[in-house]
Amino acid sequence: MSSMSGEPGANGGLGTRRMESFSDGVLAIAITLLVLEISVRPPGSELEQVLRAWPSYVAYVVSFASVGGVWLAHTTLSELLDRTDAILLRLNLLLLLFVAFLPFPTRLVADTLRDTGSERVAITVYGFTLLLIRLLLIAMVAYARRARLLVTDDLQSNAQEFSSLRRRFAPTVMAYALTIALGVAAPTAAVVLYFGIAIFVVLPYPRAKQVDH
Amino acid sequence: MSSMSGEPGANGGLGTRRMESFSDGVLAIAITLLVLEISVRPPGSELEQVLRAWPSYVAYVVSFASVGGVWLAHTTLSELLDRTDAILLRLNLLLLLFVAFLPFPTRLVADTLRDTGSERVAITVYGFTLLLIRLLLIAMVAYARRARLLVTDDLQSNAQEFSSLRRRFAPTVMAYALTIALGVAAPTAAVVLYFGIAIFVVLPYPRAKQVDH
Amino acid sequence: MSSMSGEPGANGGLGTRRMESFSDGVLAIAITLLVLEISVRPPGSELEQVLRAWPSYVAYVVSFASVGGVWLAHTTLSELLDRTDAILLRLNLLLLLFVAFLPFPTRLVADTLRDTGSERVAITVYGFTLLLIRLLLIAMVAYARRARLLVTDDLQSNAQEFSSLRRRFAPTVMAYALTIALGVAAPTAAVVLYFGIAIFVVLPYPRAKQVDH
Amino acid sequence: MSSMSGEPGANGGLGTRRMESFSDGVLAIAITLLVLEISVRPPGSELEQVLRAWPSYVAYVVSFASVGGVWLAHTTLSELLDRTDAILLRLNLLLLLFVAFLPFPTRLVADTLRDTGSERVAITVYGFTLLLIRLLLIAMVAYARRARLLVTDDLQSNAQEFSSLRRRFAPTVMAYALTIALGVAAPTAAVVLYFGIAIFVVLPYPRAKQVDH
Repeated sequence: MSSMSGEPGANGGLGTRRMESFSDGVLAIAITLLVLEISVRPPGSELEQVLRAWPSYVAYVVSFASVGGVWLAHTTLSELLDRTDAILLRLNLLLLLFVAFLPFPTRLVADTLRDTGSERVAITVYGFTLLLIRLLLIAMVAYARRARLLVTDDLQSNAQEFSSLRRRFAPTVMAYALTIALGVAAPTAAVVLYFGIAIFVVLPYPRAKQVDH
Repeated sequence: MSSMSGEPGANGGLGTRRMESFSDGVLAIAITLLVLEISVRPPGSELEQVLRAWPSYVAYVVSFASVGGVWLAHTTLSELLDRTDAILLRLNLLLLLFVAFLPFPTRLVADTLRDTGSERVAITVYGFTLLLIRLLLIAMVAYARRARLLVTDDLQSNAQEFSSLRRRFAPTVMAYALTIALGVAAPTAAVVLYFGIAIFVVLPYPRAKQVDH
Repeated sequence: MSSMSGEPGANGGLGTRRMESFSDGVLAIAITLLVLEISVRPPGSELEQVLRAWPSYVAYVVSFASVGGVWLAHTTLSELLDRTDAILLRLNLLLLLFVAFLPFPTRLVADTLRDTGSERVAITVYGFTLLLIRLLLIAMVAYARRARLLVTDDLQSNAQEFSSLRRRFAPTVMAYALTIALGVAAPTAAVVLYFGIAIFVVLPYPRAKQVDH
Repeated sequence: MSSMSGEPGANGGLGTRRMESFSDGVLAIAITLLVLEISVRPPGSELEQVLRAWPSYVAYVVSFASVGGVWLAHTTLSELLDRTDAILLRLNLLLLLFVAFLPFPTRLVADTLRDTGSERVAITVYGFTLLLIRLLLIAMVAYARRARLLVTDDLQSNAQEFSSLRRRFAPTVMAYALTIALGVAAPTAAVVLYFGIAIFVVLPYPRAKQVDH
């Protein structure tokens, strides 16, 4: 069941190349569309307008970090994929459905950060989208392992990153769930926490340099 | 006429790599642009505004599933393509013309789902776009077979997915045609059916797991 | 100076892979963004609004066909490229500058097709953009030949498409120049001609099937 | 630690392919989205409206040239990368964060070029974004060298372009810093200078042709 080459379709399953390039496309567009939601806030002096747009900047950075974290996890997984199959392709489409949706709750959060007291719904939708994205990533990794789609030979180089990714799954899901609950009472604090989670996800695995060399 | 390697342009025809990467780009953008059409509906409380946007969510999911189905079919076909030729490249461009057009009727459907009684035109335009996309996919598969552009050697891995794709062509076209007719009388029911067709197209072929292992 | 493999950077020049994937990205986005310019035209009944948007559909199809023609020419060239160099990469960026600009004159043309009598400026800007794109394609082909960046071995498969592309350069440029002049007097006729030119560019080379087999 | 093949993940590190394709996606989208910011300026005759939009054209060309320069530098670096690692992937995400942000200050500059006397903030934000992008490119190159991620064998073909890139780092950063300072006093002059810097960055390395042949 293991493969000799990276050629798509060469060894009893579908190749991963198009799954990767389509996913790269959707992730790249979702991450870049976020900037369209940023706009200055009249009235006031030029500087005031640019400064008053701070919720847009915050939402942009948090969502960018979150999608960036998805891309890193997706790359880490697909580096270890020998091939894909019908089920994994569908799980991947479902993942992309929620990633491509993210610009909408991002805009909601940016819009409502301005009027404190009414951003509970926005922040809850935002949190659930992030949570679903993470759960789908976990489902993809779990399925790929169960269906034996992973390579077995060149594990050594990428295994650290992969096991580091997997070790963070449980704490990340827990953190998202807690932050969703917190967001109902303190929406602004939740935004800060979502940024913290994104950074935690994106951070390289500890002692990467020592082991790699 | 069969090939020894996947190298583009190496064996008496154009390589498929750029056709795939351009198509992945257009499909990824069309599927991601759909989110730009979603917006909250004032007035009302924050929650009411988000809930009242439900036609946008419905249209997003139906169109995402439909484009996702096109991508799956496109990938299934191109996995079996040994090379492409001048005609297939033009058929592919025509397919992308209608896929890239889809965000417009999607927006129409979302806009008119709100005012029951006036969404007949929108849902008809939407249905014809989906039907044309499906017919062009069928034309591409038929042409690729007739012009002997398919690989003959590693059929076993992907052949199931491919024949499952082809077996669904006739029912899908029929279902689209019937739903277009129904949409004139009952537009909202048609949206539900379009979603059902998309799911039917996207579903993995039956007994995938048993045969694959 | 000829190469043994398609590996990027492997033979005394830069590889073409990233030039291709970046160009595919820009072309795919430019061609897909065109749909964002389409919108219905209130007031009136639902059907009237959708029908009254016809200039948007016309502009969408003409620009899609034009960008599609650029993609075909770009692919035909890059299939024959052994490698790229510093100058060709810059010419390519200049080409993409005008391709990515096309959605703007497309919108102008769609907006002004509605008010006959005032669309001269729009149609002239549109024509010059298409002409510049074509001239840059010609410059790229001419430069690639002069700098000996083309492969010399597997010419047979793609040479027909390539020489057909080159044979159309002069008539296409002439047609664009004449249509720009005509557009000052008869803007709507010019739109029809731009569509004709796009179709002429996109058409497969004559007798492709007989020679290919 | 050096590699024998270009295969991703084949030699003790992550492959560069997905980093390249994701970056190509984000760069292609950022560069193409810039056109969405262009719009005509009523009132007035058709020609006046198109002409009065000149700040949009200027901002489009300057930003396009700047992102194009980033793409060239990114390609030059990644052609020499044997593999990537956890840190370089994160630096790359940070670079893309600011590249994807560029359409926002571009729009600001276009908006404020129209009202002389109030564009200081816009031009300063724009300058800092360009400066940060350049600093992150420098950081990526420095890190890749320090962590020995570069290939050592086929240096000859690309080394000129790479060393030319590196030789321009210091003057470019200096030029950006000076132009940011100048922009407070003379914003319009700063736009001209940013264009000059972009052209300087994009220009091919001197005597490329003589050495290459």
